[in-house]
Amino acid sequence: MIKHIVIAALCLLVLFGYSNAADFQANRLFKLLRSKNSRNWSVDKKWTVIEEDTDEYSPVYIAPQDGLAEHDKISALPGQPEGVGFNQYSGYVTVDPNAGRALFYYFVESPVDSDTKPLVLWLNGGPGCSSMIGAMSELGPFRINSDGKTLFMNDYAWSNVANMLFLESPAGVGFSYSNTTSDYDKSGDKNTADDSYIFLVNWLERFPQYKTREFYITGESYAGHYVPQLAYTVLLNNKKTNQTVINIKGIAIGNAVIDEETHMKGKFDHWWSHAIISDATRDAIFKQCDFTSYNTSTTCDDIVDKAWNEIGDIDVYNIYAPICLTPRERNTSAIPGSIDAFDPCWQYILEFYLNDTTVQKALHAKPTSWDLCSDVITNWNDRAVTILPIIKYLIANKQRIWVFSGDVDGQVPTTSSRYSINALNLPIETGWRPWYLNKEVGGYLEGYKGLLLITVRGAGHTVPSYQPQRAFALFASFLEGKLPPSS
Amino acid sequence: MIKHIVIAALCLLVLFGYSNAADFQANRLFKLLRSKNSRNWSVDKKWTVIEEDTDEYSPVYIAPQDGLAEHDKISALPGQPEGVGFNQYSGYVTVDPNAGRALFYYFVESPVDSDTKPLVLWLNGGPGCSSMIGAMSELGPFRINSDGKTLFMNDYAWSNVANMLFLESPAGVGFSYSNTTSDYDKSGDKNTADDSYIFLVNWLERFPQYKTREFYITGESYAGHYVPQLAYTVLLNNKKTNQTVINIKGIAIGNAVIDEETHMKGKFDHWWSHAIISDATRDAIFKQCDFTSYNTSTTCDDIVDKAWNEIGDIDVYNIYAPICLTPRERNTSAIPGSIDAFDPCWQYILEFYLNDTTVQKALHAKPTSWDLCSDVITNWNDRAVTILPIIKYLIANKQRIWVFSGDVDGQVPTTSSRYSINALNLPIETGWRPWYLNKEVGGYLEGYKGLLLITVRGAGHTVPSYQPQRAFALFASFLEGKLPPSS
Repeated sequence: MIKHIVIAALCLLVLFGYSNAADFQANRLFKLLRSKNSRNWSVDKKWTVIEEDTDEYSPVYIAPQDGLAEHDKISALPGQPEGVGFNQYSGYVTVDPNAGRALFYYFVESPVDSDTKPLVLWLNGGPGCSSMIGAMSELGPFRINSDGKTLFMNDYAWSNVANMLFLESPAGVGFSYSNTTSDYDKSGDKNTADDSYIFLVNWLERFPQYKTREFYITGESYAGHYVPQLAYTVLLNNKKTNQTVINIKGIAIGNAVIDEETHMKGKFDHWWSHAIISDATRDAIFKQCDFTSYNTSTTCDDIVDKAWNEIGDIDVYNIYAPICLTPRERNTSAIPGSIDAFDPCWQYILEFYLNDTTVQKALHAKPTSWDLCSDVITNWNDRAVTILPIIKYLIANKQRIWVFSGDVDGQVPTTSSRYSINALNLPIETGWRPWYLNKEVGGYLEGYKGLLLITVRGAGHTVPSYQPQRAFALFASFLEGKLPPSS
Repeated sequence: MIKHIVIAALCLLVLFGYSNAADFQANRLFKLLRSKNSRNWSVDKKWTVIEEDTDEYSPVYIAPQDGLAEHDKISALPGQPEGVGFNQYSGYVTVDPNAGRALFYYFVESPVDSDTKPLVLWLNGGPGCSSMIGAMSELGPFRINSDGKTLFMNDYAWSNVANMLFLESPAGVGFSYSNTTSDYDKSGDKNTADDSYIFLVNWLERFPQYKTREFYITGESYAGHYVPQLAYTVLLNNKKTNQTVINIKGIAIGNAVIDEETHMKGKFDHWWSHAIISDATRDAIFKQCDFTSYNTSTTCDDIVDKAWNEIGDIDVYNIYAPICLTPRERNTSAIPGSIDAFDPCWQYILEFYLNDTTVQKALHAKPTSWDLCSDVITNWNDRAVTILPIIKYLIANKQRIWVFSGDVDGQVPTTSSRYSINALNLPIETGWRPWYLNKEVGGYLEGYKGLLLITVRGAGHTVPSYQPQRAFALFASFLEGKLPPSS
């Protein structure tokens, strides 16, 4: 019965305006970059020239948080399986009381020894997409069954080895909001990092037992901007305050947009070498498009459109995966409740679940129409054309940096990550080699001085969705600061 | 019980000398090319300079074949499912009575309207590997269950649309033999084609109802040599006899070795772009190895060895597939009898089945130790460094030519096929586009004047093993001479 409802919903979604080139995460960036407005975007020099900010520390807004953690505790999520043995919390942290700006988080404590395990923030990209994607379709403790109503346990949840904090940022994304709606028009890299920092400081007031805990920031896609920028913001503020306000130890970014020029070059190289576009189109793109500025021309736009047409109706986020079809169109049925069968219709399933009023109530969320990616944020006012200087800063500041990459993603491909890292000219410390899990090659790695490149074999853009076990092994190794095994 | 026997056999095989870089099909070529002997191979100019042979026709050996077809009829294959509604034949055709040289075939008639359906020959590659690979692990009417004893129906058998003839060639491969064992030392491209031609003429005497039937030759891997060379031999002989001895209409070759220089270039490009080898190794290969002659040097050999080490223990024939592990090592169990779950231990399963004495008897095969690839053929005396001139000849002679390619094969990758075709400089008639099956992209195609390049998405080296339904759709389209649908 429930299954029929979600099937009907899926049919409607497919009939009315569904597109597989779904408007989420990196595709957002792609669209924004190509929009008319984007050509006039100013690039905030803050991100391109790293300087030690000599300003005095101006203390951020900190509100009293007493009793709020207990209020945020989730008794149970609708449809969750029996025997959940860990604490979950969710709710809002105000980051600007005057504007009425508050960010939504979902926090999952580790079921065992949460006291000694690190605190890890996860951020999804976009810009403007929700980290509930990661929480409920990638690496969180639950995944949603294809019925859109019930949950099953993810055996490879990252919360098995860390206390996982999912943040919807900036305001306007998911359940995060501002009462001053003009805030949405001001969105960009800089205030996303600033608000996220204020969120963290206040969240640690609410959960003071985590104040001195080892802290890592992780994320994927456009979070290739968010994560390093937030880490940088944390480090700068730690220095200004002359104390460790947040005990940050490192970052891990997956299929991350790091540098626009190498990103675009790697993308079209990947498309051609994976035989989804023609020689002629590849050649024309490299001739017509100037990736150094991504100052798009009509000629470049046209040939990129041609490339998208040549690709056809595949999931560019995992070029070998099935696409989301109506049940009638589907060739095979997904096995319900299996972590090994990732439902290509996950976007609809996630939207279905998070728009259920009982779910929103259980999450302490303001009743709203939850979207995968924000509809209210229509522009993005500042972005770094390259994150490489920040990466260098983080390396100089002894942060652990892992750049991971699902190798069948056509949206932010492994070639892009490789080109971006090459641009850093770091010495190689560990030569390219496979890493193993259960006697199978889980992917490959190359260790640079201060940074690790690591791939996940057979994983798409949202790595833990497609290869949950490999992604978990990678994450566990990251936290331990050890390379995964070589046999 | 039966399952335990095959499991025990698999364990033994894994313990004693099993390697995932399995010695089969294209890997054979790779080894042969790199062996010391290969450097002194003479390249038969017959294949590199196509000339109209002005010699008079010297009639080939033809033996009386009366009554042999009925003798070759298979009553049932051991372990075959109930309700088999088609005729199967197998046995030997003598190609040289003086030497006592005979080639083994397996023939499957179409279950419906076999009288009107074309005759299609399938050849596996190597050189020296058996076409029973294709018959029992790829596109034949049955696949072998993981127990190594029972068969299940392949819903996507190519015999649904054609009468399929599988030939083990040359002598020394599989059940094919010569009583003059020195024949094995003379193996090469030329006499493989010559013997195969004599086989065909005699086989048509045995099955005269197929004499005027439309005929196609198909195959994969090193059959990228065999297939065009045999087609060329057929056409030459048809001309010499001034009659259509064999009514050949076209060829289809998959993940085919067509041209050594472009093959090697495409292979290492594929390895790098698919993130299985390092930048440094890719660069060194392109610097140290001379693909124009593949006159390997120690420096080149060393760096290619390094590349193989960097890849690690994956199945290079399908870089995303699981490898063959012992049952204890395996993470998941294969679903028995499902065409959608291709067992990575297929080589052992096939060897187990074909070495069963009741199976050999049912097949009318001489009792022997059947191998995937020949152990008695240890050298290969002539090969074409390029098949491109023959392809041109076939185009000029109005043959339908489809070059298909599973796009996740690292052994003879799609890049190799693309580079090879580009070397022909043919005008493009149909621009690159996806083709569809069940609303999913089945792959991509580009139509050239006289030749079609078509990929199969998510398929490895043995295309029908991994993507049986897509491979079948492609084959059916090939026979119809129509491009598969564009939506």
